[in-house]
Amino acid sequence: MSNPLVLDAPPGQPLIEYHREFDFPVHSVFAAHTDPDLYARWNSSGPTPPRFDLFEPRSGGAYRWVQAGDDGVEYAMRGVFHTVRQDEFLLQTFEFEGYPDVVTLEYSTFTGLPGGRSRLTGRSLYPSVEFRDEFLSNGMGDVMSDGYDQLDELLGSVPAGS
Amino acid sequence: MSNPLVLDAPPGQPLIEYHREFDFPVHSVFAAHTDPDLYARWNSSGPTPPRFDLFEPRSGGAYRWVQAGDDGVEYAMRGVFHTVRQDEFLLQTFEFEGYPDVVTLEYSTFTGLPGGRSRLTGRSLYPSVEFRDEFLSNGMGDVMSDGYDQLDELLGSVPAGS
Repeated sequence: MSNPLVLDAPPGQPLIEYHREFDFPVHSVFAAHTDPDLYARWNSSGPTPPRFDLFEPRSGGAYRWVQAGDDGVEYAMRGVFHTVRQDEFLLQTFEFEGYPDVVTLEYSTFTGLPGGRSRLTGRSLYPSVEFRDEFLSNGMGDVMSDGYDQLDELLGSVPAGS
Repeated sequence: MSNPLVLDAPPGQPLIEYHREFDFPVHSVFAAHTDPDLYARWNSSGPTPPRFDLFEPRSGGAYRWVQAGDDGVEYAMRGVFHTVRQDEFLLQTFEFEGYPDVVTLEYSTFTGLPGGRSRLTGRSLYPSVEFRDEFLSNGMGDVMSDGYDQLDELLGSVPAGS
């Protein structure tokens, strides 16, 4: 059984808030967000893993990755890391280039829990309530939930301590 | 007579929207936002201009500047440029390091107007309505308005075409 994604989209506010627990240590969950090889393995949505043009997980760094869909068409995501605090906190922008200038600001807080478990608490701000609702109605919640389930599988397959 | 800053803070929304016209061309107003020497001259709030530790006005670049107040105490601002489109558009994060992890996402659109004039349209998203309201009650609107008045003075003193 995987842990559920708990997602809240407050009415009239251009944001979502969510949390998700993991049966893995905070270090492992954080690494899966900042190591491009690991990140690619739980964020792939096509027949091949995403390709990273740039991935600089440090405060002031930037990233861009390209995913090919089942039809071979490529789409790209890019952003900047405003803050990276090892095993604690990420603050980054996110843009799907198919929606130019529609940029999300994403807060991710990583917390250790007893028993080698951890919690991810997220808050994403959208340019407007309308865009947030559009992304939600396009299945964003399911994509996030499926991604975290894949992250569970990934962490379960990685030798402890690696 | 300077042009007024028109600022709207919609109730219950964690954002401000504003616009300000300038009797100067869009190229000049944009340059004043992306040239650190010009930027320092209309954003100084102390006895000496701010000092730039880093200023990379390009998509994926970062910046940090330090201002000394009248009492000599230094405070720092930092962020990342998500998008820089020459003479058109800036999207950047902004953090006053005295409020750690309270980060604004700032959209700035530059539009040319007839007669060598221009308009800046801005939209800033805050982590919460509470922080937005706190910054507003601490005089953020006056600081912005004074800054744009200083920008007018600066542009009026710079030879045309420079």
